[in-house]
Amino acid sequence: MGPRTADVSAPARLAGPEEGIGADELALATRNHGLPLEAMRYDVTPPGLHYVLTHYDIPYVPQAGAWRLTVDGRVSRPLDLSLADLLSFPQVTTRVTLECAGNGRALLTPRPVSQPWLVEAVGTADWTGVPLRLLLEEAGAAPDAVDVVFTGADHGVERGVEQDYRRALPLAVATGGDPEVLVATTMNGAPLPPQHGRPLRLIVPGWYGMAHVKWLRSVTVSDTSFDGFQQTVAYRLRQTVDDPGEPVTRIAPRALLVPPGFPDFMSRARMVRPGPVTLEGRAWSGQAPVAAVQVSTDGGVSWEPADLEPATPRNRWAWRSWRTAWLATPGDRDLAARAVDADGRVQPLGQRWNRGGFANNAVRWVRVVCADTVADGARPRS
Amino acid sequence: MGPRTADVSAPARLAGPEEGIGADELALATRNHGLPLEAMRYDVTPPGLHYVLTHYDIPYVPQAGAWRLTVDGRVSRPLDLSLADLLSFPQVTTRVTLECAGNGRALLTPRPVSQPWLVEAVGTADWTGVPLRLLLEEAGAAPDAVDVVFTGADHGVERGVEQDYRRALPLAVATGGDPEVLVATTMNGAPLPPQHGRPLRLIVPGWYGMAHVKWLRSVTVSDTSFDGFQQTVAYRLRQTVDDPGEPVTRIAPRALLVPPGFPDFMSRARMVRPGPVTLEGRAWSGQAPVAAVQVSTDGGVSWEPADLEPATPRNRWAWRSWRTAWLATPGDRDLAARAVDADGRVQPLGQRWNRGGFANNAVRWVRVVCADTVADGARPRS
Repeated sequence: MGPRTADVSAPARLAGPEEGIGADELALATRNHGLPLEAMRYDVTPPGLHYVLTHYDIPYVPQAGAWRLTVDGRVSRPLDLSLADLLSFPQVTTRVTLECAGNGRALLTPRPVSQPWLVEAVGTADWTGVPLRLLLEEAGAAPDAVDVVFTGADHGVERGVEQDYRRALPLAVATGGDPEVLVATTMNGAPLPPQHGRPLRLIVPGWYGMAHVKWLRSVTVSDTSFDGFQQTVAYRLRQTVDDPGEPVTRIAPRALLVPPGFPDFMSRARMVRPGPVTLEGRAWSGQAPVAAVQVSTDGGVSWEPADLEPATPRNRWAWRSWRTAWLATPGDRDLAARAVDADGRVQPLGQRWNRGGFANNAVRWVRVVCADTVADGARPRS
Repeated sequence: MGPRTADVSAPARLAGPEEGIGADELALATRNHGLPLEAMRYDVTPPGLHYVLTHYDIPYVPQAGAWRLTVDGRVSRPLDLSLADLLSFPQVTTRVTLECAGNGRALLTPRPVSQPWLVEAVGTADWTGVPLRLLLEEAGAAPDAVDVVFTGADHGVERGVEQDYRRALPLAVATGGDPEVLVATTMNGAPLPPQHGRPLRLIVPGWYGMAHVKWLRSVTVSDTSFDGFQQTVAYRLRQTVDDPGEPVTRIAPRALLVPPGFPDFMSRARMVRPGPVTLEGRAWSGQAPVAAVQVSTDGGVSWEPADLEPATPRNRWAWRSWRTAWLATPGDRDLAARAVDADGRVQPLGQRWNRGGFANNAVRWVRVVCADTVADGARPRS
């Protein structure tokens, strides 16, 4: 007997103590990419800078006009829709900050071996599409429905299971009005780029990225709980292999700094000049809205409130900017921001570990070196 | 005395035997990104999929209309140009395949510690701009000029040297007609995205990426050889630390496969079904044009010619597609393509090592698992 599908997959594992990033993690890191954090200066992330994570390959769709979306399962009127059909429904535009559920994974100890994000797996876009609830109304979803299952065109093997990427939402979330789930056809006013789901994707404001199924081909209403791989095996908060775990859902509160000053190429350490520095960044939450951002410039000894952009309907599901003044004096400084949400949740200083490395929102420190001379930089290292 | 600029930089080094990718290499890999190789199917790389390497931060340029480009040094009429001024010169569009000089670095043994590319640091775009030779004519470059120096707005520290990113070209290259160097303002018909040099960059068809200075602010004609960091310290082909080395210049011939079949999420191993498979990919060279592409499906025992897209003026500096038929039979297969250029250069099977990991064009093998069953994939790994 020849090779089997399972032969290309290894079980999930944790990195050993001191184990460097492996060839498999690197292969993911070179394909997928984060938001360079200096680009948090833009309210809406410019094309190509928004984070991207693709489980398998990016499907090749040279003829978007031929794409079909089906709505079927426990419905009274199954739908088979072209892009033109979708555009005949009312269109809604929502500004959404998307974050990968695995953001921060590579900073955990022990490190779950998977896509090795630091904290840059985030981005914000204006997504336009038809509210999913209108499609489900049109199709007549059955009152006994439990889950709505979304299937993408991306196909591959994961932990020995060959699959199309597939996730579900409870019917109440799929038909909810706040957040309103979209079947999106444009990103920042342009057709979706291939890596963001061309020509169609789901947008679930406030939820981690795994829910926003890209290259969407079918919506299936089900009267049973969906037990597919990405729902019951992946994307669970587990402490042990046998733990069934809780599902990963909404984005935990997080604030990040635009790294101040300028970097060293290799170490990425930051340099600033002595004097006044504006510290700025972004904060977001898919749970209760961000209520405050606090900044520490002394390694966590003290935390001071930053000026936070007011909440508006426009930024309900998107990040908000914050800023504060800092007087840099010579020495090594550890800076960080942390978000506090309206339910009083504060970003933790320590890690909240789980085997998948999901939904971790520990405070991220930025080491800044404030040099007391400006002239020595022009000379090569002696 | 407080910290100095040099304190944030460590000397260049090689990874030890079995040393995994480090935190510094990972920080670069999460910011910069390659072309997912399945996207080689597009003649012109869609926005956001083209490889990106930024030494420091991406400069923030909210008001591109205020940008100025100066042309000075050994010229009779120094220029100080707005974007509108640049657009009053004749505009040329050239399709160019850009590749990072460090592409393939992470596959070398020992591995130079830097941006850890596998082989995906490549992309193709249509760049539009004014030929540099017209600007140098307008300014009246002195006949005794040697180098033309290009300064970008990206600022940082590298190996202890604080610097704006700066590179030079010999006057004959800067004023040459084939390739014709461009000061580009558009990429694929749109303004340059921030990560590709908004609002201005240099395009030097056929040269590795380090020559294509982004966020271009000044062009300085010099009667001496430029000895800046990126010219005489970085981007040299050295065997030892003390070796002055040869400069990195034009892109060595390379062919790559669009990975066939579908991948495993974590291992990135490829699966195909038994039966006919079209193998396809791209080939390019900044030296003599690609004359042939050869494919091996048996780990290098034999090489067969592929069908290569004919050379045209349009693709002189861009990749060309190639394809060939393959009958997949059950088992593990090692596939590769290699380019042969018009001067008879063949991509090597073994590495051509140097301390920077530059200009390496060793043949890249793709392991493909052809499973003799299709049904087992639907079951979880037992």
